[in-house]
Amino acid sequence: MKKTKRFFAPFMVALLFVSLIISCDEKGQKMKDGSATPAFDLATARAEIEAANKAFMALVAAGDSVGLANFYTQDAKFMNAGAPAVSGRKNIQSAMSGIIQSGITKVDLRLNDVWGTEDLLVEEGELSLFAGDTEVAQEKYIVVWKKEDGKWKLFRDIFNSNLPAQ
Amino acid sequence: MKKTKRFFAPFMVALLFVSLIISCDEKGQKMKDGSATPAFDLATARAEIEAANKAFMALVAAGDSVGLANFYTQDAKFMNAGAPAVSGRKNIQSAMSGIIQSGITKVDLRLNDVWGTEDLLVEEGELSLFAGDTEVAQEKYIVVWKKEDGKWKLFRDIFNSNLPAQ
Repeated sequence: MKKTKRFFAPFMVALLFVSLIISCDEKGQKMKDGSATPAFDLATARAEIEAANKAFMALVAAGDSVGLANFYTQDAKFMNAGAPAVSGRKNIQSAMSGIIQSGITKVDLRLNDVWGTEDLLVEEGELSLFAGDTEVAQEKYIVVWKKEDGKWKLFRDIFNSNLPAQ
Repeated sequence: MKKTKRFFAPFMVALLFVSLIISCDEKGQKMKDGSATPAFDLATARAEIEAANKAFMALVAAGDSVGLANFYTQDAKFMNAGAPAVSGRKNIQSAMSGIIQSGITKVDLRLNDVWGTEDLLVEEGELSLFAGDTEVAQEKYIVVWKKEDGKWKLFRDIFNSNLPAQ
């Protein structure tokens, strides 16, 4: 009986050590990225934003205001120049529809830089708007991206002209 | 000799446990906020941004373009409407000087919301510009804040008008 106890005690100590080390590592992993998902990688996020911008440009070319509105989060604000901010998908769809109906047939988005985390990304870039073959606006922008249903969506979208007011 | 060893072994095991638990906790702390500093608190950060905005407004009222430029990070971009973005403190100081010389005597900044982390904060708000007693602009803005030398500074600053172009 005493011999079993002698063998058992060091075994239990070793087991406790191992479980402590494992739980310690799990704790670190969870805190590192704010969840149990894989660690955040900014280069990957940048590529995802580039892809989202490409899809956004295709929707403008297609004149698809519903598709464009779905690129925004439910609680998004479209901060258009020359008007108060527009909140929510329904109002954003109306704004997109208005832009398309004004004759805009193409947007060229050029990402400069991206910063942030899995929870919130900030994109800085420049854009041009076209009506047919004519460039009608040269602008710079900041977009704040958030994940909704596992996809990056525009949460705040603001831009202004690089050219003096006419 | 054997008795000393018997006493010493459990003591060493206990010491190892304690040091393992401490290092595990330190690891968690470091990963949680990306450094060894206290954990990030958004409400505190919001109050810090409110205080920074108050100081910024005072510098506009004082016509202090050097003080205003120092509120921006070394690598900041001031994304003024009607002109390309202006990079770096020297150029931002010139832009601020131009705004002051154009007759702006007051800016009223109204923070709506703040998101982000210790590394990067995003502020959304609205502002009014005044020349004397006359409100000459109603705008909305996004500011991206970063810490430089332990102080929140403007890293990206973009805004546009809430009113239709005249």
